[in-house]
Amino acid sequence: MYFCSVIMENKIFEIEIKVRDYECDSQGIVNNANYLHYMENTRHEFLCSLGHSFAESHKKGVDPVVTRADLQYKSSLTGGEIFISTLTVERTGVKIIFHQNIYRKSDRVLCCKGKIEAVVLINRKLSRGDYYDELMKDYL
Amino acid sequence: MYFCSVIMENKIFEIEIKVRDYECDSQGIVNNANYLHYMENTRHEFLCSLGHSFAESHKKGVDPVVTRADLQYKSSLTGGEIFISTLTVERTGVKIIFHQNIYRKSDRVLCCKGKIEAVVLINRKLSRGDYYDELMKDYL
Amino acid sequence: MYFCSVIMENKIFEIEIKVRDYECDSQGIVNNANYLHYMENTRHEFLCSLGHSFAESHKKGVDPVVTRADLQYKSSLTGGEIFISTLTVERTGVKIIFHQNIYRKSDRVLCCKGKIEAVVLINRKLSRGDYYDELMKDYL
Amino acid sequence: MYFCSVIMENKIFEIEIKVRDYECDSQGIVNNANYLHYMENTRHEFLCSLGHSFAESHKKGVDPVVTRADLQYKSSLTGGEIFISTLTVERTGVKIIFHQNIYRKSDRVLCCKGKIEAVVLINRKLSRGDYYDELMKDYL
Repeated sequence: MYFCSVIMENKIFEIEIKVRDYECDSQGIVNNANYLHYMENTRHEFLCSLGHSFAESHKKGVDPVVTRADLQYKSSLTGGEIFISTLTVERTGVKIIFHQNIYRKSDRVLCCKGKIEAVVLINRKLSRGDYYDELMKDYL
Repeated sequence: MYFCSVIMENKIFEIEIKVRDYECDSQGIVNNANYLHYMENTRHEFLCSLGHSFAESHKKGVDPVVTRADLQYKSSLTGGEIFISTLTVERTGVKIIFHQNIYRKSDRVLCCKGKIEAVVLINRKLSRGDYYDELMKDYL
Repeated sequence: MYFCSVIMENKIFEIEIKVRDYECDSQGIVNNANYLHYMENTRHEFLCSLGHSFAESHKKGVDPVVTRADLQYKSSLTGGEIFISTLTVERTGVKIIFHQNIYRKSDRVLCCKGKIEAVVLINRKLSRGDYYDELMKDYL
Repeated sequence: MYFCSVIMENKIFEIEIKVRDYECDSQGIVNNANYLHYMENTRHEFLCSLGHSFAESHKKGVDPVVTRADLQYKSSLTGGEIFISTLTVERTGVKIIFHQNIYRKSDRVLCCKGKIEAVVLINRKLSRGDYYDELMKDYL
């Protein structure tokens, strides 16, 4: 077997975020739940960058819904630190799976690794999941 | 001058709340913004105790809206502490004014003193403010 | 093979919590990150019920740290709803694994299922993980 | 009477912030408490821009503490909107008073007007309040 000369990798979306002090808890580090917030914010920025409007979708009865969030906490972020939040996406059947990582910008240390699964409800019913395929085609 | 034999005081509504650790920030004390959350929660419990339903009101086009929140921070609460959140209410013109205090239960020390003003919008327009007078009559 | 007449099940710790309106987002349901907060709060109440003090532990250089949180979102909670938050715990090697579920009280529908992994750091170094075995013996 | 040809105005510090969807509550607008978070974040960015380090100060036993927050809510922000958060500062006696406003960037509409009072504790005791005068001299 030989490796294909063109390595096909998912296109990566990334944004830079700065930790706000109030996002840290009494241990002086970002509270675990806030990584979910950071990742949710990143997905929203990702979809908005592709021209998606949650309001428009919702009016048409289309709602993406998170069904699973699996986060591994590797290293802690503290107040004022800047981090890079990355996202790649794949679709398998009814699920849209976001692979999201958070790296401290200063040393590129991986702070949190997430796998977020979502489905698309159309008029409150589970759909095939391909609704956003066209929108996200450059990333799938 | 002599004191009236019946001292007229506003009836006090109160609930007990326990501080959750994640509500504390890196200083190890409840973050200032969370006192606003505690007071919002207290107003909701107060109105619910009188039979009010925010959902029902909203469908009728009636929405109470906070216009001002003036909080004085006196003493800090820490994780796990239990506090008493009190509320009295008065109406002056279009404004409903909630006087809300937060006391540490163990020593009744006043931690936060709040004056929250609200108005009532009916179909998105400012109303006279008396919509809730009947509901809150025992407290006004 | 036959089933042992005594079915050994992990002892369950549970608390009741009421959703606060501000914990809901613009979709009118509890924001995903708040389930992590509810589960963190439940773990704290569990350890406190056994006499544990985070402050005391910390002074001795002992710190439990969450390394993974895997949440499955099944059904949405809305403002004002009461839910039951349950916890069972097991230890495998260096990991303490909390199995945590959140059920709507009114109909016992499972809203969120979580598997939270933690390790125990002693003086900032990974320990064998058995530090809390004695404390949690009735639940392991 | 004539106006002085040099109008002395407090120097204004400002930053731009984008509303994250999870900062909105079930009414679809930014929850009241989050304006306090935005203003806290603005004060931190302001002090950091002047070279202040909260960690350094704290080690020296110097802690600025908010004693009062008086917010007037004028217009609502919604998810995804960008706003300008401004700050001017004055010192009167032991108090440092921050005048903070939040304007929607698109139409410069004033959304929230805040007056935040703070004191400076040195070794947990109330100080004269002039500790930061040198640091903030361009803004006082």
